[in-house]
Amino acid sequence: MVSPGSSTTKTDVDKKRAYLFADAFKAFTEGGAEISSEARNKMREALGGKGAGLAEMTASGVNVPPGLTIVTQCCRDYHANKQQLPEGLLEQIFEELKTVEAAVDRKLGDLEKPLLVSVRSGAKFSMPGMMDTILNLGLNDLTVEALAKLMNNGRFAWDSYRRFIAMYSGVVLEINKDMFEDLLEDKKDALGIKTDSDLTEANLKELVGEFKALVEKKSGHVFPQDTKEQIKGAVEAVFRSWNNSRAIYYRNLNKIDHDLGTAVTIQAMVFGNLNDQSATGVCFTRNPSTGEKDLYGEYLINAQGEDVVAGTRTPNKISQMKTEMPKVYDELLETVGKLEKHYRDMQDIEFTIEQNRLYILQTRTGKRTAAAAVKVAVDLVNEGIIKKDEGLCRVEPMQLNQLLLPSFDLKSKEKAKGESRHFATGLNASPGAAIGRIVFNPDEAEALSSKGEKVILIRIETCPDDIHGIVPAQGVVTARGGMTSHAAVVARGMGKPCVAGCEVLKINLEEENMTVNTTSGVQSFKKGDTISIDGSTGELFKGIIATQDANLSPEFRTLLEWADKTRKLGIRANADTPDDARIAREFGAEGIGLCRTEHMFMSQDRLPAMQEMIMANSEDERKAALTKLLPMQREDFKGIFLAMQNLPVTIRLLDPPLHEFLPKLSDLISDVATMRAKSVKGAELRNKEILLRKVSELHESNPMMGLRGCRLGLVYPEINKMQVQAIFEAAIACQKEGVNVEPEIMIPLVGHVEELRIARTELEAVAKDVMEKAKVSIKYKIGTMIEVPRACMTADEIAEFAEFFSFGTNDLTQMTFGYSRDDAESKFLQKYLEGIDCNGVKEKVLKSNPFEVLDRAGVGKMMKIAVESGLKTRPELKLGICGEHGGEPSSIAFAHQIGLTYVSCSPYRVPVARLAAAQANLNLEERDK
Amino acid sequence: MVSPGSSTTKTDVDKKRAYLFADAFKAFTEGGAEISSEARNKMREALGGKGAGLAEMTASGVNVPPGLTIVTQCCRDYHANKQQLPEGLLEQIFEELKTVEAAVDRKLGDLEKPLLVSVRSGAKFSMPGMMDTILNLGLNDLTVEALAKLMNNGRFAWDSYRRFIAMYSGVVLEINKDMFEDLLEDKKDALGIKTDSDLTEANLKELVGEFKALVEKKSGHVFPQDTKEQIKGAVEAVFRSWNNSRAIYYRNLNKIDHDLGTAVTIQAMVFGNLNDQSATGVCFTRNPSTGEKDLYGEYLINAQGEDVVAGTRTPNKISQMKTEMPKVYDELLETVGKLEKHYRDMQDIEFTIEQNRLYILQTRTGKRTAAAAVKVAVDLVNEGIIKKDEGLCRVEPMQLNQLLLPSFDLKSKEKAKGESRHFATGLNASPGAAIGRIVFNPDEAEALSSKGEKVILIRIETCPDDIHGIVPAQGVVTARGGMTSHAAVVARGMGKPCVAGCEVLKINLEEENMTVNTTSGVQSFKKGDTISIDGSTGELFKGIIATQDANLSPEFRTLLEWADKTRKLGIRANADTPDDARIAREFGAEGIGLCRTEHMFMSQDRLPAMQEMIMANSEDERKAALTKLLPMQREDFKGIFLAMQNLPVTIRLLDPPLHEFLPKLSDLISDVATMRAKSVKGAELRNKEILLRKVSELHESNPMMGLRGCRLGLVYPEINKMQVQAIFEAAIACQKEGVNVEPEIMIPLVGHVEELRIARTELEAVAKDVMEKAKVSIKYKIGTMIEVPRACMTADEIAEFAEFFSFGTNDLTQMTFGYSRDDAESKFLQKYLEGIDCNGVKEKVLKSNPFEVLDRAGVGKMMKIAVESGLKTRPELKLGICGEHGGEPSSIAFAHQIGLTYVSCSPYRVPVARLAAAQANLNLEERDK
Repeated sequence: MVSPGSSTTKTDVDKKRAYLFADAFKAFTEGGAEISSEARNKMREALGGKGAGLAEMTASGVNVPPGLTIVTQCCRDYHANKQQLPEGLLEQIFEELKTVEAAVDRKLGDLEKPLLVSVRSGAKFSMPGMMDTILNLGLNDLTVEALAKLMNNGRFAWDSYRRFIAMYSGVVLEINKDMFEDLLEDKKDALGIKTDSDLTEANLKELVGEFKALVEKKSGHVFPQDTKEQIKGAVEAVFRSWNNSRAIYYRNLNKIDHDLGTAVTIQAMVFGNLNDQSATGVCFTRNPSTGEKDLYGEYLINAQGEDVVAGTRTPNKISQMKTEMPKVYDELLETVGKLEKHYRDMQDIEFTIEQNRLYILQTRTGKRTAAAAVKVAVDLVNEGIIKKDEGLCRVEPMQLNQLLLPSFDLKSKEKAKGESRHFATGLNASPGAAIGRIVFNPDEAEALSSKGEKVILIRIETCPDDIHGIVPAQGVVTARGGMTSHAAVVARGMGKPCVAGCEVLKINLEEENMTVNTTSGVQSFKKGDTISIDGSTGELFKGIIATQDANLSPEFRTLLEWADKTRKLGIRANADTPDDARIAREFGAEGIGLCRTEHMFMSQDRLPAMQEMIMANSEDERKAALTKLLPMQREDFKGIFLAMQNLPVTIRLLDPPLHEFLPKLSDLISDVATMRAKSVKGAELRNKEILLRKVSELHESNPMMGLRGCRLGLVYPEINKMQVQAIFEAAIACQKEGVNVEPEIMIPLVGHVEELRIARTELEAVAKDVMEKAKVSIKYKIGTMIEVPRACMTADEIAEFAEFFSFGTNDLTQMTFGYSRDDAESKFLQKYLEGIDCNGVKEKVLKSNPFEVLDRAGVGKMMKIAVESGLKTRPELKLGICGEHGGEPSSIAFAHQIGLTYVSCSPYRVPVARLAAAQANLNLEERDK
Repeated sequence: MVSPGSSTTKTDVDKKRAYLFADAFKAFTEGGAEISSEARNKMREALGGKGAGLAEMTASGVNVPPGLTIVTQCCRDYHANKQQLPEGLLEQIFEELKTVEAAVDRKLGDLEKPLLVSVRSGAKFSMPGMMDTILNLGLNDLTVEALAKLMNNGRFAWDSYRRFIAMYSGVVLEINKDMFEDLLEDKKDALGIKTDSDLTEANLKELVGEFKALVEKKSGHVFPQDTKEQIKGAVEAVFRSWNNSRAIYYRNLNKIDHDLGTAVTIQAMVFGNLNDQSATGVCFTRNPSTGEKDLYGEYLINAQGEDVVAGTRTPNKISQMKTEMPKVYDELLETVGKLEKHYRDMQDIEFTIEQNRLYILQTRTGKRTAAAAVKVAVDLVNEGIIKKDEGLCRVEPMQLNQLLLPSFDLKSKEKAKGESRHFATGLNASPGAAIGRIVFNPDEAEALSSKGEKVILIRIETCPDDIHGIVPAQGVVTARGGMTSHAAVVARGMGKPCVAGCEVLKINLEEENMTVNTTSGVQSFKKGDTISIDGSTGELFKGIIATQDANLSPEFRTLLEWADKTRKLGIRANADTPDDARIAREFGAEGIGLCRTEHMFMSQDRLPAMQEMIMANSEDERKAALTKLLPMQREDFKGIFLAMQNLPVTIRLLDPPLHEFLPKLSDLISDVATMRAKSVKGAELRNKEILLRKVSELHESNPMMGLRGCRLGLVYPEINKMQVQAIFEAAIACQKEGVNVEPEIMIPLVGHVEELRIARTELEAVAKDVMEKAKVSIKYKIGTMIEVPRACMTADEIAEFAEFFSFGTNDLTQMTFGYSRDDAESKFLQKYLEGIDCNGVKEKVLKSNPFEVLDRAGVGKMMKIAVESGLKTRPELKLGICGEHGGEPSSIAFAHQIGLTYVSCSPYRVPVARLAAAQANLNLEERDK
């Protein structure tokens, strides 16, 4: 398939004369039945994705419409040789086409049984829609009549012909397609009809005449009637389309090599609409919803593929075929079984039956729900089709999330749609089902929730200040913001359903209502109305939709058991309450990797004591307030220890800046200004002023880099000391009850070894004191969060005083990038992810949000340095991640790669992490082979 | 000097029988006249600092009071051997003492000419005041009478005896010293006298009796009359004092090895108060104020050292000795000349003359002013005493700062003191002289300054919000805050005089006045009063003190010329205006390393256009505002280019967040709340509300990590484009005038290579456009600030699109530590530097402020990674520092070590940097030897 004297390299393939699928496939598999991924790759290189797929199917004994593929080398030669087709190529094509003609009993240009072919591009990497395709090639003024007679359908034949002329003229003759479109529209206007399907055979014949006249006018030649000339034109056009501007842009964008070239596949067209012995359909080898092993799909007798998709006729269930076309049904069953076995995964298959003959048009891995993914993977292993390791890699870890949440009952949803209760759809930002009364204000969400009311928080967009309203809400809806908007990220982190970017909602925050234009008219909602939101689909419903609990299948448990045996990484959970701890343990957590103590002070019964402590004017006053908090903290820790018996519990000492526990500065400024302007006097003003003074005193320009973490503990040591006292008193109480506890005290935000050494010295004294008083000894560890870049750089020093490192990747990402998490997303990060206009080209600054997917080049490099130098000082150092990344598969893979001991994530992410950790180990083993 | 069977190692030294200085010195120098620093070190190890110093002086032929030193090995043996003195030690001491006795013609315990000795500790490293010392040893009930007779001064003899008893009893017999003090106080009370000097010989005799009785009562023994027993007791006590708790604490604090041990020096006491042929004095070999080569000092005939120091008698100028004691004066001249030559630096010498015999008691390197340091160093080189390289290392670079600033005329200051105009002294936080009217409010400082008024800003303490008042003020005074307080740091950075922590000032900010208690009564000051402040001394004066301009000596220029030949680092300046650029160039800057464009928008004529740009509701409005700014920017750049002809000018594009150009959020909230409460209506309220909305929109929780730097440029590209247009139009205008310009455009805050690539692509298009329009080509570079940790980690990628890296060490330190520069200092950094109470011990978290002295372990390590990987990608990459650290000597040394191309600092720091860079190169060469 190569021109003589071409400068490009010849491969084994291009020595052959022609390239029918089966031959090509054999060339790559060298006789073996299985095809290696390497061979499959080479085949894609030579034949393009489409050609390779057809070759592979043919080779595995499946009946696909016959055809041939011109290898990519030919395209490279074509362009290298001033866009000349290699000598002898056309002769080879027509020679090989004879085999195709024989196989389908049709002939190119034949006046009785004309062969129609498609001519398609196909590169190594999929470039959907970028290059050109021509269908129905082989039609001319004579064969159209033959086709009409053969199909007994004149309208179909003439419709195909007018489409072919337009397509061929556009692609090959480079006549603007819009002009054909204009003629079509003019015709319909003249006839007073609306849709193409209303055109009669006679109308179409006229249109063909007009199309041909246009071609002649524009190109100076009549439309090519020679079918061989048609083939030549089409092949060259496909080659040329490799270098059209769309394709070049696409390759630049996706970093695809411009030198690869495209293959060309010429394939016989088959017709499911020939007669009642013909049909077309789509099927899955297993149920894509449930994973059950059961042929699943639809078909239509005497129809074309488009008819199934278009929904103009209602297709039949595939099972009905058993009675309507029993023989073909058996053949289909056998064929799809063969394909599933060949491709070793559930397949999504398009087929056509022409005159009782089954043709497979396409097969691909079938998309499936999370539940199906799990069942199919486990079943395939049990059926011996794939190995356990492969089964583990067949499920996207993040999919497991869906399975843990309650979901809406599908029937109930269908019914609601019938009642026009489905009023809007936004982005499915965080999966799960939620029902509640709508509120438009986070304060109100908090207030109503505290009274036991279930609420859905609706906002135009959310910001960190809304967090107190998101936490107690059942779910969140925003009108603006994408999948990485604040609401989406926060909600996913909490496993809380969220529909984001639902732009059809017209929200009036002041009047606390919203309206939406639906097909059944404008619907209005006001505060207190009940709605149901489906975070898995992005749908919003008026009223209540019935839900069903998460039902963890036996396959789910099996898969995770396999994962546990495969993974090397430990999995812990971030849990701040006994309830969270219990859930985490049920999901398989092997301890708590992060217990944030600040959340414990936020509840209504503790906040006053906390505020008293902060407002204290002396150490004594501060200590008095802390004395009130001590018993509460002790109970908190006791509950968590009990839930995590025999497992380690990492408790982080108080971390956030103190002003987070007080009213907002801007509110206080406004209040005081108003009171003064209105001449309010006395205690009311005085107290506000005192509060304002304190909050101003605590105010920081950049609180994220301010007085928090261990800095707080060093400046106000009484707080940490109280916490450590509570931890040890709780641990002792548990131990006395026979409950084994393993507290690990974590000192946050350490950036200098001296911070840790001093804090540790102070806290060890408290621990010793409490244990000596109780005459009980508790085994414990002291370690630190590694979340400040400097800690990574000086990890060797820090490891001297830390028994464990827990990477706080949220803060570490924040400081490594210098992106304030509270600001970046709304101010520039969203734009960085969407792309920035650069001299007219949209350029993405970041491929993914570093707060979601751990940035390996920057943050990851820093972590690696920390791990290596930390282990040098202390080889037994325990290493973990406790940022949001601990539950994100790609980040978990990285954690595994750099040799961490464990990751810690939110309880609902634990199954995800277990699976991701197993996959990480398998991939690393794969890589190391 | 070692007990038999001691386990510790023997050295060459301890094989000798005894250790007179001369012997010991010879042992180390092995005959050579010069002593190597290694030998000096060994000698300090064996003889301690004091003993080694005396030995060296003796060896260099100087007459010091004779004595002997017991080596440190003996102390180690003493402690290793259950606190037993090595066998035979005492015999050796008494044997060697004979030589001492012969040398001074006195004898221990002699009843005519009794020898008195001092017994002193002395370790390898100075531990001032930590161990014990005994003076006047050798006195007893009999020798005291002999001394009285010999000195013809009974009062002196008895006073010495009572002091000796108290000292010996405290140190050797471990009797609480306070009891002797109590007896002394009782005696004075009983006699009705106030000072010790009023006690008569008779009183002192009585007191000695009472002291002895106390000793007998407390110890059960009479006070030791045997002078040999006194020696034994004293030697053991000094050995014991090595392990007293003060000494151990001090060694822990200073990381001094506990095993070193102390030496003991027993030295004859000599008396300058013996008669009129005796004297005592202090002298410098050169003038410590000016550096002139001229013996400088004072002496007193018939006096003791204390008399000179105490100021009870007015000493004579040393030159008077020429006539009063011509022979001894000549000897002194010769001796100090010898010492200066031996120690190769200007010496500060204590001497005593006993009976026309000159004894040198101590010599040390003389402290000197900056001016003297420079002159002495250059003179010593020119005199051939030291080499050029050594001369360069003799001046502390930071000292040069003082020489660049105008200073107060000393006579004018003295006169003011006489008129009681000196009213307070604070910390000398930033050197220089400033005169102005006092204001208590930064806004007022700004307003008055803009009217040409010279003001001194007085604050209780300053914060970043005050910066607009500090910039235009002549000087700053604060009542609170230390040398690293905000005011101090900022003022030093600007070369602006500052007196900090002046706590005697009682400032009333609301009433805008202050009072201060002085010895001449309470003085009051109100806004507008003129004062003079001396930042070099911390003194404040009422009214005007005459100033004198900085007068750069020829030696100053010589030293810096030498430095320029020696250094490898380039030195640039941070300059934002043509004036700054000119000053920088005069001080030797080789270009501008940082031109901050934001300062250009802050002035009153530009701010409105800038605000208009920010408040713009559309791109068109924004562009219109930018069009107004363009010509102003062009003129700014032109001025700077002209000042920096032929030198590179690095211009940083707009960096700070936009809200910095608008009023403060808290002020707007307060204003709007007040207006609403007072029911203000109409345009006034509306405009405020619009402003509030915009400022709220721009508000960020952590602006340092928010929308600024290149992020701003990517989100609002028009700003950067306008700036680049201005730069190139200015450059073209200069070039047309024949002025060669080398613009380097610096893109700030890059953390990801794509930020730089995209910004660069956009800006290159603008540059090309402007150049093509003008048909002029300008050579330019584009580079980036490296100030985000991630940039360091991914420097290899970033270097692909950067022709230079300039380390923004301020921000890099900020993010590497996670210390918000605006908050850290006042919230916790000050405490970190002062020390944190840890279980009762004060522990420093940080040794130095990382915003002043570059943190090598963390920030430095990151920079090293960036340098190495940046150079790997682009070997010709230019590398600089443009943070505050660029003018700090230790940071400059680090910059040199890691191979940077240049440092850039404020214009007034350029000479400092030139010298520091030379020293860095010399030290590195030294290290590499």
